[in-house]
Amino acid sequence: MTARLNQWSMRPRVIVNCAMSADGKIASRERKQLRISSEEDMARVKELRLSVDAILVGVGTIIADDPHLTVKGRPKEEQPLRIVLDPNGRTPDDARVLNDWAPTVIVTTIDCRKRWQGANVLRTGEGRIGLRSVMANLEANNIKTLMVEGGGETIWSFFEAGLVDEFRVYIGPMVIGGKDAPTPVDGAGFAGTSPTKLRMIGSERLGEGVLLSYEVVRES
Amino acid sequence: MTARLNQWSMRPRVIVNCAMSADGKIASRERKQLRISSEEDMARVKELRLSVDAILVGVGTIIADDPHLTVKGRPKEEQPLRIVLDPNGRTPDDARVLNDWAPTVIVTTIDCRKRWQGANVLRTGEGRIGLRSVMANLEANNIKTLMVEGGGETIWSFFEAGLVDEFRVYIGPMVIGGKDAPTPVDGAGFAGTSPTKLRMIGSERLGEGVLLSYEVVRES
Repeated sequence: MTARLNQWSMRPRVIVNCAMSADGKIASRERKQLRISSEEDMARVKELRLSVDAILVGVGTIIADDPHLTVKGRPKEEQPLRIVLDPNGRTPDDARVLNDWAPTVIVTTIDCRKRWQGANVLRTGEGRIGLRSVMANLEANNIKTLMVEGGGETIWSFFEAGLVDEFRVYIGPMVIGGKDAPTPVDGAGFAGTSPTKLRMIGSERLGEGVLLSYEVVRES
Repeated sequence: MTARLNQWSMRPRVIVNCAMSADGKIASRERKQLRISSEEDMARVKELRLSVDAILVGVGTIIADDPHLTVKGRPKEEQPLRIVLDPNGRTPDDARVLNDWAPTVIVTTIDCRKRWQGANVLRTGEGRIGLRSVMANLEANNIKTLMVEGGGETIWSFFEAGLVDEFRVYIGPMVIGGKDAPTPVDGAGFAGTSPTKLRMIGSERLGEGVLLSYEVVRES
């Protein structure tokens, strides 16, 4: 059913993947990155990255963690496209995501003037990036599967727009705590009693933690 | 090992139990209670309540949800003691937790003057309640196991004080989202890279969701 919906809506299949503590945090309140994932989970994430056409993060993740977003030990031709949602062009010129290990697209609003060596730029949306426009551009360029890795604001924007097909969350054996600590899905959140419904399609021990896999339930 | 620690520290065994969404929220941003738990999980919680000597919540939960905190269909003699942490005496006189279905203790600071029909009062701590003092009083009155049900600030205070032995979290199949939505463990949170370490002791499908059970790892 989800596959049919994707064909109908002409967009990539979107898989959100993240790791959180047993109390639902992805980092400490100072946004310090913690080792939540296990070796086994990192191997899984590597496989997942190799299976998708593109990996997407928000610019906040670039600034906080400076990730490569590549799969180690694989040639450039096998790497998924790296995509950064960066409305106002804040990606630093020396960010690792700009290295030549894989192709990169930085998405900004139409008012942004910033350019980067080593990245293609897509300008779309006034004031804010329109995700449906991003999806249409990705679909037009043969991106059939998109993995969204974070952070919490970016993941929220995909849920808010109704664009998520799968949610995979690894739960590491720790409690971080903190009402201001970042969570997998931040932003405004769904109001009242209208959360996005999921259907669990798997739960699996991976090292010291557990991986839960869900598909989003479409109501219509 | 945990049992020995409990004997040494002369306090009840503390089991934190809660239900959260797949993105780590216990309610929506307006603190609206959502049906996160399943029938199967509610049956489990009922059994758990019957197996402990006391159930504890913070006054915020009393004001937001007005719970009975009793096990339906059981006589008063079988009900666990109900405990409310209420530093400044905000529990309403008509709160359900004050009904005569089970005994109740309300814990306030020594500066509070409020009394309640239908509840015993324990005054302890200046300015704030000291949890170790509460534990000593419970131990002295034959409470050997204590279930902490919430909310997030109360659960945090138990983790912060190093008083949690077990953490059980039911994960319902939904995404709520929201950086201001309450989580199982709120408060200040652990700083830097020092979360409380857990060891998973069980994961079990319960209805549409999954129950994860952990024990707290003592480092010494």
